Amino acid sequence: MSPAPASLPTPTPDPALPARVRVHEVGPRDGLQNERAVVPVEVKAEFIHRLADAGLTTIEATSFVRPDRVPQLADAEDLWPRLADLPGVRLPALVPNARGLDRALALGVREVAVFASVTESFARANLGRSVDASLDMFAPVVTRATDAGVPVRGYLSMCFGDPWEGEVPIPRVVAVARRLLDLGCAELSLGDTIGVATPGRVTALLAALGDAGIGAERLAVHFHDTYGQALANTLAALRYGVTTVDASAGGLGGCPFARSATGNLATEDLLWMLRGLGIETGVDLDRLTAASLWMARHLGRPSPSRTVRASAPEEA
Amino acid sequence: MSPAPASLPTPTPDPALPARVRVHEVGPRDGLQNERAVVPVEVKAEFIHRLADAGLTTIEATSFVRPDRVPQLADAEDLWPRLADLPGVRLPALVPNARGLDRALALGVREVAVFASVTESFARANLGRSVDASLDMFAPVVTRATDAGVPVRGYLSMCFGDPWEGEVPIPRVVAVARRLLDLGCAELSLGDTIGVATPGRVTALLAALGDAGIGAERLAVHFHDTYGQALANTLAALRYGVTTVDASAGGLGGCPFARSATGNLATEDLLWMLRGLGIETGVDLDRLTAASLWMARHLGRPSPSRTVRASAPEEA
Repeated sequence: MSPAPASLPTPTPDPALPARVRVHEVGPRDGLQNERAVVPVEVKAEFIHRLADAGLTTIEATSFVRPDRVPQLADAEDLWPRLADLPGVRLPALVPNARGLDRALALGVREVAVFASVTESFARANLGRSVDASLDMFAPVVTRATDAGVPVRGYLSMCFGDPWEGEVPIPRVVAVARRLLDLGCAELSLGDTIGVATPGRVTALLAALGDAGIGAERLAVHFHDTYGQALANTLAALRYGVTTVDASAGGLGGCPFARSATGNLATEDLLWMLRGLGIETGVDLDRLTAASLWMARHLGRPSPSRTVRASAPEEA
Repeated sequence: MSPAPASLPTPTPDPALPARVRVHEVGPRDGLQNERAVVPVEVKAEFIHRLADAGLTTIEATSFVRPDRVPQLADAEDLWPRLADLPGVRLPALVPNARGLDRALALGVREVAVFASVTESFARANLGRSVDASLDMFAPVVTRATDAGVPVRGYLSMCFGDPWEGEVPIPRVVAVARRLLDLGCAELSLGDTIGVATPGRVTALLAALGDAGIGAERLAVHFHDTYGQALANTLAALRYGVTTVDASAGGLGGCPFARSATGNLATEDLLWMLRGLGIETGVDLDRLTAASLWMARHLGRPSPSRTVRASAPEEA
């Protein structure tokens, strides 16, 4: 007997967890950016519409990076007008620098994000400069955006471990978080970029940030499932009071040429847990799963989301 | 940059969690039983030895089912003597009925398990009789085993959801648990056979069992990862005080012909979390991963364990 697509049991709330969570959907940007084969702009636009139809209210749409650096996202100017009929949906876009912000503001993007690194190694590898120099680069970006009424999310990558440096000291994360808030960021997303975190460390980091005056209400968590820890880590973060969780529809992300490099926490697996816990998100799991299956068919390979696979075993 | 095989960060204990967990490894029995191609007995014996070498101290070795029903496990009599050099390792075996117990006792098996169903539908599908009738069938099995000094573990399948009946009422689980303990079972393993559970429900079931006088010290949890919930559910069970966790090396299990039917919680993913939380298990994760990779090569397909895949991306 193989497990049939199952319906969720009646929710069993846990009073120690929040009543509502905002899912910050990163599939179209963080999920697709590593796809080598460029996804046509019409497909991206339809994917985002399907995600919005499923009830997602924050969908990170694209990134204004240099087109020659990330060909997958070179269509940002083409994509943006196709999303004009989604006024009720927050559609943040990543801006790597002042030039990216110019492009975003020219299009009327209403929310942006900057992508900082906690570690020197990743700052140099990804941003070509030190942590301090990259924060100096972001300073005028954040100022100009906020002056224009555009709130800025600050991503902190490598908050738990770094492939070159190993374990990342918590005070380093707190220092970069403090700096990003001082620059004017409205929200911080704590990234476990290589997926090594475990729940105790998550709680310890959140507690250290709390001690530094950075409460859960300004924080999001962004876990990768490289070692299968993403959902357990999310549960620890919810228990601490975090109510914004980054996830990627269908588990999009990671490198398609290294099957081991699993990507972001799958939004569907997150929603299964949240619904089971009676935590409101406003998202329809069935419609979201259908959107992810649609995208998986376009990409030509099964979704890494367990929930998506279990819901459509004939396609997995 | 792809995430390199990473070393675990320094453990960050959580005082609300147990200091030590016993991993009940089910890969050789629960993991392999669904493999259609029969694994040679020498391979099974070497796999179990490799698991023991990794530090696992409880390894469910086989099942004394009817050979024509489960050809994969028809070699139990051949396998058992090959494990004689593992005296420090607990090697329980499943016995479906009195005939199976006869076979196990004749070989000198020192621990056995019976596999009960909480739901009528699965009892009829899997055991060919009602829940009551199956418990009646187990009664003399448990009595004879315990009289022979052989402790009996009672598996409860479908503790959270059932593919025919949907949600499973908690009082039904409590009633079957009570009955199995009254029969003389030394330990109960609570199975989420179709993987639908979420952490709040896990806590609620454990609390209901506690209210009925069945404490965490007599309980194990057995989660399937069908919807990606297994590790988060395990974390909830640990928080409640459960210290015995069933897992399958490399995530073996599920049906090889339905890729969606993911199997048991992968022992490696469990160990990554437990090590990160500073919870002692006595198991060497690197050696266990090597054993699972060895088995995956034999089976000819990658391990579903995220940790195993991340640790050997060239084989994933």
